[in-house]
Amino acid sequence: MSGDTVAEDTRSRLLATALKLFSEHGVGGTSLQMIADELGVTKAAVYYHFKTKDEITEAVAAPALQELIARMDEAERQRTRGSQIDHALGGFVDLIVRYRSLIALFNSDPGIMRAIERSLDGVETFAARMRKLLVGPDPDLATTLTANVLLAGLALAGGSSEHAHLDDETLRTHLFDIGRRMLGRPKRRPKTGTGVAEEGA
Amino acid sequence: MSGDTVAEDTRSRLLATALKLFSEHGVGGTSLQMIADELGVTKAAVYYHFKTKDEITEAVAAPALQELIARMDEAERQRTRGSQIDHALGGFVDLIVRYRSLIALFNSDPGIMRAIERSLDGVETFAARMRKLLVGPDPDLATTLTANVLLAGLALAGGSSEHAHLDDETLRTHLFDIGRRMLGRPKRRPKTGTGVAEEGA
Repeated sequence: MSGDTVAEDTRSRLLATALKLFSEHGVGGTSLQMIADELGVTKAAVYYHFKTKDEITEAVAAPALQELIARMDEAERQRTRGSQIDHALGGFVDLIVRYRSLIALFNSDPGIMRAIERSLDGVETFAARMRKLLVGPDPDLATTLTANVLLAGLALAGGSSEHAHLDDETLRTHLFDIGRRMLGRPKRRPKTGTGVAEEGA
Repeated sequence: MSGDTVAEDTRSRLLATALKLFSEHGVGGTSLQMIADELGVTKAAVYYHFKTKDEITEAVAAPALQELIARMDEAERQRTRGSQIDHALGGFVDLIVRYRSLIALFNSDPGIMRAIERSLDGVETFAARMRKLLVGPDPDLATTLTANVLLAGLALAGGSSEHAHLDDETLRTHLFDIGRRMLGRPKRRPKTGTGVAEEGA
């Protein structure tokens, strides 16, 4: 491997190790030294990639946030409002489900959110953009509150340990249907294969 | 004042001061010494009432939790399921609105929730009891998830600084209507005076 490739590989392993330790000890309970020890490298090797724990936290969350931006870009390109809503909601739910262990970590440790907010010019911007996709640019108060209850509720319930045993497809289908219902979208026909789309709706 | 009354008065002022400092500095950033200084008493006087910050945190949250229990007791005494749901949901929303600055603090500092969980035998128990009131003892998965999205969303959105400018009655009416809609309750007739009950629903 070239020097760059080795460095890139160390960086990836470092982030995976950080995420593992964050999950076990919380962000507050994890030190750069612990990450170095777990990885079997020196603290200097960690410093080469990241100067602070905030930088590591930000890098751990970056892939999910980049995907969220990509999904919102895609939603904005849809031609009908209905399709925009479904793309935005579907992308949001899909990310919640796939990154739910990360979200559980975020929910349990606001230090992470603060670190991300500092570094990414505000998570508010993400929430505001997602909300605009879901309910349009000039919603009344009832609609704004509905969207905020929905987005917060999906993220918090989706990341809850109570639902950790559910497989991704089941959780995704249910959360998507809850979102569609709250946003007043028409009922979906149940997909062949999952059979849960309309259950208990 | 008798000695008991003086102690009780000091305890009340101590809790009010703690809540003020928690809001300003977070729970993590507030020390018993800071509380003593702000109150103009010795640290020993604080120790007389509370041995740890966890005990103070618990006492700050206790009135809201006791009210929640009382509202759930009241809901359980209702004769029809519809009335049980409305009482439980209405009580939950009312507490969120009245204690929203406390909730905002909780949301920003999971240390508080952990302290309360330790001391009160689990907040889970509250959530489980509230959910049972809202959707019955044996809900299917779709209904369970709907209730969890709703309860988490109401608490998080209700405590959000984005809605801090709304007056209590407006916020309460909207959150209650969102909850009723998600739970499949029939539409309310708008109350004379508030006029917001059906707005944008």
